[in-house]
Amino acid sequence: MTQKTKRHNDPALAEARRNQVLCAAADCFRRKGYHGAGMAEISKTAGMSAGHIYNYFASKEAIIESIVERDMEEMFSIFKEFADKPGDRVTVLLDGLDRGVERHTDLSQGALDLEMLAEAARNEKVANLLRESDSHARDSMRELLVGERGPLQGTALEEVNARIEVMFSVMGGLLLRKMLNPDLDINELLKALRPTMKTLLLPFE
Amino acid sequence: MTQKTKRHNDPALAEARRNQVLCAAADCFRRKGYHGAGMAEISKTAGMSAGHIYNYFASKEAIIESIVERDMEEMFSIFKEFADKPGDRVTVLLDGLDRGVERHTDLSQGALDLEMLAEAARNEKVANLLRESDSHARDSMRELLVGERGPLQGTALEEVNARIEVMFSVMGGLLLRKMLNPDLDINELLKALRPTMKTLLLPFE
Repeated sequence: MTQKTKRHNDPALAEARRNQVLCAAADCFRRKGYHGAGMAEISKTAGMSAGHIYNYFASKEAIIESIVERDMEEMFSIFKEFADKPGDRVTVLLDGLDRGVERHTDLSQGALDLEMLAEAARNEKVANLLRESDSHARDSMRELLVGERGPLQGTALEEVNARIEVMFSVMGGLLLRKMLNPDLDINELLKALRPTMKTLLLPFE
Repeated sequence: MTQKTKRHNDPALAEARRNQVLCAAADCFRRKGYHGAGMAEISKTAGMSAGHIYNYFASKEAIIESIVERDMEEMFSIFKEFADKPGDRVTVLLDGLDRGVERHTDLSQGALDLEMLAEAARNEKVANLLRESDSHARDSMRELLVGERGPLQGTALEEVNARIEVMFSVMGGLLLRKMLNPDLDINELLKALRPTMKTLLLPFE
């Protein structure tokens, strides 16, 4: 791969190079941990000089920021898809459950997510990035659930927030399940997960 | 702290020294990551010489093995408590939910758990330790749920296993929730978590 590629002139090429760095960095963070993966390692994995990488990302922090942003964009496009689907929200969300489970039991994505979470426990900047992204995700989910009923207040707001916490807890917990039980049967899991999610989406008795 | 303490003669003292190492190591793993925390760092944090530590633990792997074992023992004692309680299993487990939530939203324990899980994604030995422990936890939970109904087979066994996966997913996911949402209101969360767990503990409609 030539290191002398003309930069910034071609936006598509610049985007491809940025992606090349993000994929290499994700790979290094998984293998060595965020802390253990230096720019030299990322540069070697990406097949680009460190100098070339610095044209796109000022630091390792800028790289992880972009990884979190990319995940957020993916998440927003899924929420938008759900919002655009006709039919009641409960059916739309239950129909989308398979896809959510698939995303959250992908071991390669899961390893990166776990590494970012472990790093967040000791790195306030990474923690803030993930918290901001999570806060946006909760907002999107609340909007999807509440919809035209307009902004909630008081007890109703607290209740929907608590339900979202439990939903996110189940889905986030799936990252751990596939890692801890390699024999996990996704189809069997879905049979128990669907009624659980239904409980969270319908009014409590 | 004297480094010349007579070792092994006093079992209580040996146990105290082992605990001192385990606590220091847990602290280092949280701060530096498992990979980043060497025996020198652990020895400094424990206030014991590396040579002294090697009397109790042959390697860093032996230390993490002991940490996982200690967590397992704690878990078994909780399962045993549940099993010994009078009343139906659903009530006993729902009554114990507060305690489970407290344990799974403890940020200091959570940071260590996340670090071990992230390390498991790149370290087969750590992965196997955690998987073995998780397999025992699933067995204990199954025994608690099935009880005198005796060993299950076929569809009934698959169903109870899937429910356990979802229960463990919710509880494990709580580790992430407290980290990602520092404003998480545990009492509100429990209001949504209780009906969710009830769905998983009672026959599906």
